[in-house]
Amino acid sequence: MHFDHTLESARKLDATDELARFRAEFLLDDPDLIYLDGNSLGCLPRRTIPHLLSAIEQGWGRRLVRVWREGWMEAPLVLGSKLARLLGAREDEVLISDSTSVNLFRLAIAAARARPGRHRIVSDELNFPSDLHVLQGVVDLLGVGYRLELVSSPDGVSMPADAIAKALDASTALLALTHVAYKSGYLYDMAEITARAQRSGALVLWDLSHSVGAVPLDLNGCGVDLAVGCSYKYLNGGPGAPAFLYVKRELQGLLRQPVWGWLGSRHPFAFDMKFDPAPGIAKFRVGTAPMLSMQALEPGIDLLLEAGMDRLRRKSVTQTEYLIFLAQQWLTPLGFTVGSPLDAAQRGSHVSLQHPEAYRITQEMIEPASSPLRVVPDFREPDNVRLAAAPLYNTFSEIHQAIARIRDIVVEGSYRRRSVEKQAVT
Amino acid sequence: MHFDHTLESARKLDATDELARFRAEFLLDDPDLIYLDGNSLGCLPRRTIPHLLSAIEQGWGRRLVRVWREGWMEAPLVLGSKLARLLGAREDEVLISDSTSVNLFRLAIAAARARPGRHRIVSDELNFPSDLHVLQGVVDLLGVGYRLELVSSPDGVSMPADAIAKALDASTALLALTHVAYKSGYLYDMAEITARAQRSGALVLWDLSHSVGAVPLDLNGCGVDLAVGCSYKYLNGGPGAPAFLYVKRELQGLLRQPVWGWLGSRHPFAFDMKFDPAPGIAKFRVGTAPMLSMQALEPGIDLLLEAGMDRLRRKSVTQTEYLIFLAQQWLTPLGFTVGSPLDAAQRGSHVSLQHPEAYRITQEMIEPASSPLRVVPDFREPDNVRLAAAPLYNTFSEIHQAIARIRDIVVEGSYRRRSVEKQAVT
Repeated sequence: MHFDHTLESARKLDATDELARFRAEFLLDDPDLIYLDGNSLGCLPRRTIPHLLSAIEQGWGRRLVRVWREGWMEAPLVLGSKLARLLGAREDEVLISDSTSVNLFRLAIAAARARPGRHRIVSDELNFPSDLHVLQGVVDLLGVGYRLELVSSPDGVSMPADAIAKALDASTALLALTHVAYKSGYLYDMAEITARAQRSGALVLWDLSHSVGAVPLDLNGCGVDLAVGCSYKYLNGGPGAPAFLYVKRELQGLLRQPVWGWLGSRHPFAFDMKFDPAPGIAKFRVGTAPMLSMQALEPGIDLLLEAGMDRLRRKSVTQTEYLIFLAQQWLTPLGFTVGSPLDAAQRGSHVSLQHPEAYRITQEMIEPASSPLRVVPDFREPDNVRLAAAPLYNTFSEIHQAIARIRDIVVEGSYRRRSVEKQAVT
Repeated sequence: MHFDHTLESARKLDATDELARFRAEFLLDDPDLIYLDGNSLGCLPRRTIPHLLSAIEQGWGRRLVRVWREGWMEAPLVLGSKLARLLGAREDEVLISDSTSVNLFRLAIAAARARPGRHRIVSDELNFPSDLHVLQGVVDLLGVGYRLELVSSPDGVSMPADAIAKALDASTALLALTHVAYKSGYLYDMAEITARAQRSGALVLWDLSHSVGAVPLDLNGCGVDLAVGCSYKYLNGGPGAPAFLYVKRELQGLLRQPVWGWLGSRHPFAFDMKFDPAPGIAKFRVGTAPMLSMQALEPGIDLLLEAGMDRLRRKSVTQTEYLIFLAQQWLTPLGFTVGSPLDAAQRGSHVSLQHPEAYRITQEMIEPASSPLRVVPDFREPDNVRLAAAPLYNTFSEIHQAIARIRDIVVEGSYRRRSVEKQAVT
């Protein structure tokens, strides 16, 4: 695709955007805010507000405990079925539950126990540190002999299937990777890696936190065994929204997850003292789900289904191509490098731009000393300005303004007045 | 206290209720509904509605990812500090996190690993089945040698400290009990049992789900090691509200919980690949908390602090005494027995009334075929009509009407038209 660097050109791209109408579905009414952090916390769909208000007042407030019998008790399964359509999974393979970390922990333990005699868990150094922490905790808990091995990236950005495949052997119980890398945005070859890992006899788990709602997924087509992910990024499910897990139908009978809560039992309300796991995906339920946060999920999933993942991916690719084009025009001469794959086929929906002063530049973007325009990206250690193009609501004009703004900050040097002392940023 | 069975008498009790004003704090505006199930799902505080609406629109909607830096990231700790005041704990000993089941799992594993060589976990048959399920999963995971032993109740209602103490020995790693039994409402002697268990060298964990907000708690005074509990019952935190955990300050350094998520690390936003646990109670954090559900918690905690646990307990005792008085007057002659301790000092804030037809009677109370008055208790297997007096909002008149209604249903025999087929009830 041919781009040019004029604002008119950005406006033309917006004018022909087949998904343009979806922006109005979100509470984005601050003209001085450009939000390019939808891969950290997605925006609030307007329809979520009345949906939640009804859940609060009519559901909790007026139906009280009776509301559990009026659909809420089954919500983690029903919403899971709906989410399955975004994952390329069957409707009985997905459950909304707990946090990504808790789900990863549970499935990693279950996988290790399903491959007795195999003591290696393999992941890589591009994985989200929290996933690595969880896996470190898993091998610590499983004890003697168990170990976690991390594959290195050849360039800090990408992870070829060959590099992963080399690390797999007959002692590998589980390969656990993140499908789109949180920092570089590298999009893994799920089909190829899954197939090769399975040939070694390992189970394969993908963390979809940065891919669900951003790239088309085909878990069934790739034969994926297990997956987890969060729902507060491109799913727009709200801050800390409940996470999800996927277990291939054929594995559901075999796997034993270790947290045996009553809602994962066959007859929770029989109050049997002995745990008897439910059949199917329901056995992966644990305790009572945080229903207000869970209710917030549905409008976000609906919007993605309405837009369609193929159209979203098309727009996302064009947007990240455009972002990289502008960055190469304006920012590369100022000392930036693109820390994401240049090949769109290997890239999710976010781009990292690297600069030694990335932290102070990011702060100046978010809370500018003088400009009225605030641009919200994420800073990611050590030197990344991470920018998401969320194709449901971001415009080409926003991308244009954001890259121009970074250019101006660096040219003017306004970031130099800021402290290098870091605050926590999510 | 002397009671009589007239409605006038109930109204007099309401007129002198020092906590009467708190009822208006709740969305209880259906004159045909008597809600005595606050120990299953507490009512909606009116002030929670604008609090949540602000969290949704202003927090998530307009501040977007920046809201995490504006108090939300620390909310699990800050709200935990506030909740600590209801638990008799120090402010750095309580964390809002995950579900009761997940927290029990994590702390039970941590406790077992802190007592190497001891392979017994002791609980009892009055415990909530989900807690027993979790503990069964824990011993299954810990493997060879580990076992769960359940102490029997002499009468199915109570659990004397002596019975527990007899089960403890030098091989006991953990004693895990529920402070107020979910079915009978039996209130355990926390101080005595904790002291005796600790003398055997075991750690002691209490599930406070049915006691927090219902009875005064003094975890520090009793020297309790560990506690968990849910916040959707007497805390009025909302359906599936995030649970809490307590770890005695002196144990926080020693214990290693097994789910190593990034928010439990020392510097989550440094994105270090190696997990380095945070100091203090923060090490028990895991993933990103469901913030909408978490925001819903605070007004409920505030209301309990305003009312004061001593006054709440006084009213609760009077209400359950009154309920038992009326049950003995009207229901015992109809084949009911009181399935809760008659001594108020051994009783929480709910009472179980047993009858062979409890299930059908409960259904007729909730969805009456002819009466406009709906009374909502819980049915609990096999024969319990469980009635909670939530002293923040229930009135003596409600208790009078509810017991009269049960009497009328049994006398008229209207429940006999109902199916014996059971539906799930929470």
